[in-house]
Amino acid sequence: MRPLALTMGEPAGIGPEATLKVWLDREALNLPPFFVIGNPGHLASLAADMGWNAPITVIEDPSEALQHFTNALPVLPIELGQRPIPGKPTAKNATAVRRAIEIAVDFASDGKAAAVVTNPINKQVLNEAGFGFPGHTEFLAFLSGIETPPVMMLACPALRVVPVTIHVSLREAIETLTTPMIVETARITADALHRDFGIDAPRLAVAGLNPHAGEGGHMGKEDADIVAPAIARLRALGIDANGPLPSDTMFHARAREGYDAAICMYHDQALIPIKTIDFDHGVNVTLGLPFVRTSPDHGTAFDIAGTGAANPASLAEALHMAADMAARRNAT
Amino acid sequence: MRPLALTMGEPAGIGPEATLKVWLDREALNLPPFFVIGNPGHLASLAADMGWNAPITVIEDPSEALQHFTNALPVLPIELGQRPIPGKPTAKNATAVRRAIEIAVDFASDGKAAAVVTNPINKQVLNEAGFGFPGHTEFLAFLSGIETPPVMMLACPALRVVPVTIHVSLREAIETLTTPMIVETARITADALHRDFGIDAPRLAVAGLNPHAGEGGHMGKEDADIVAPAIARLRALGIDANGPLPSDTMFHARAREGYDAAICMYHDQALIPIKTIDFDHGVNVTLGLPFVRTSPDHGTAFDIAGTGAANPASLAEALHMAADMAARRNAT
Repeated sequence: MRPLALTMGEPAGIGPEATLKVWLDREALNLPPFFVIGNPGHLASLAADMGWNAPITVIEDPSEALQHFTNALPVLPIELGQRPIPGKPTAKNATAVRRAIEIAVDFASDGKAAAVVTNPINKQVLNEAGFGFPGHTEFLAFLSGIETPPVMMLACPALRVVPVTIHVSLREAIETLTTPMIVETARITADALHRDFGIDAPRLAVAGLNPHAGEGGHMGKEDADIVAPAIARLRALGIDANGPLPSDTMFHARAREGYDAAICMYHDQALIPIKTIDFDHGVNVTLGLPFVRTSPDHGTAFDIAGTGAANPASLAEALHMAADMAARRNAT
Repeated sequence: MRPLALTMGEPAGIGPEATLKVWLDREALNLPPFFVIGNPGHLASLAADMGWNAPITVIEDPSEALQHFTNALPVLPIELGQRPIPGKPTAKNATAVRRAIEIAVDFASDGKAAAVVTNPINKQVLNEAGFGFPGHTEFLAFLSGIETPPVMMLACPALRVVPVTIHVSLREAIETLTTPMIVETARITADALHRDFGIDAPRLAVAGLNPHAGEGGHMGKEDADIVAPAIARLRALGIDANGPLPSDTMFHARAREGYDAAICMYHDQALIPIKTIDFDHGVNVTLGLPFVRTSPDHGTAFDIAGTGAANPASLAEALHMAADMAARRNAT
């Protein structure tokens, strides 16, 4: 058994608090053992400020985490550029934020950590410090040296969704959508559902782009010209893909019983249903990396950082899901 | 007290069955009195086929409906072109389908009916018979002689949504969206919430078009250029409009507490959340007509027509909502 590597994320955000909170609730939540790549002094002073009894143990190697996890939060230390002020991120800590991710990837790659779980980062502050990636996912892909772009899945107990286009305008989503993109995204999803989620023959529901999936061409041609050929190709590959389906009737409870993941054409087609159904327990999973990576599905929440109000539910789910996925991947 | 006028809708669809079912459940559902504009022989034979004890009373004027409603389903008769076969619509009945709508509008306009409730129609069959309207809403607007296009609201107990663009491709929705369209739609919605739903100072949540509402222009300019000016204009008009909001975080239970209706930029942005939350109880409400009009939020469902499996929940909600709206409108 190996521990999970949890990155500190942006130290001025809610990541450190959420980390302390899940560790405090480790027994009730039945959490898998993890260690934090972060700053021990910062975590200790934050715990003291909150009045939380969360002892910190500094470790030098992931292997030490398991023996300490029950009694103290194991922290693999990195230096900060400046003492973090909750809600006030600074580019002076950007190197530490980045370094924590690099170290986590190293441990996951050499097998010392079971998986990578990341706390939220702030892109703007990182960009000021010269971080040239749109977000975690792209940086992890770069560190892994993979050639096919990874796939983002959002998962909660009731639903898994995968957007084919993500952080682009709605207009650009329509303009850039192609049949190969849909095929590749769905293929990686089906592989991951099989390998990491233990689903023998994954069933994919593929959303149409247009209202009513285009209604036979009366409301847009893309569903017939771009989405339908992708589904035909997936079926030829032996993948149980169904669609293009009208996206408004795909996500109610009865409809969800019919598939294991929904492949969506744009950001809000995927994120509206999952955040509507379960706002607090969503987990962001990166598929297609050589290691398992999850993260809570929320941001740095600077408005509540330092107040102790952070909801650690999504981080707890991310830790559970990473451990489950890693266990299945290693078992095969 | 005046009865509601319920149109027969497509006689080969589930409308007639749903109508019989809600009448049979009139006491348990505490339904407001209504009469059907339809064919008495067809309804009687359908009830007989199902083994349902639903006596039919033919009436000549809406005023007769109230005295009969408790003991029999009041039907204001129209002739059919051909005996309907469940699941097999024919253009030969298109005139009757259309005539039922015209009669309902006449009764609502001259005050003999409290409101119009419509059963689902089949556009394709009507179009074959020369019906030149995209759907109910446009036909009702034509019959009413109104100049401003009416607004479609979908409502369930947990949420009300109003799409600004509706039955067009996603690409066309982006291309045709304008500030005045958003303002006009939101204004009609606010008026209706006040007059027909009894909300003193309606709160509108206005969705952004792009992911994260454009994230400061990084993902599309439309939210700053088109949506934000509409909100400024609405606020100048004294309407409590808030946005542009990221649409993925607008629809979970806590977020919904903050507004009375969500103004959405395209079909699926509105319909995904409401159909995900409450698939069976959605009601389609037409705002901006000179009379109250609601309809169940489902289609003709030819695949189950004639089997008795139709779920009458949405029709029951449509009848309740129409009666409540009409009572408030008349009280002011």
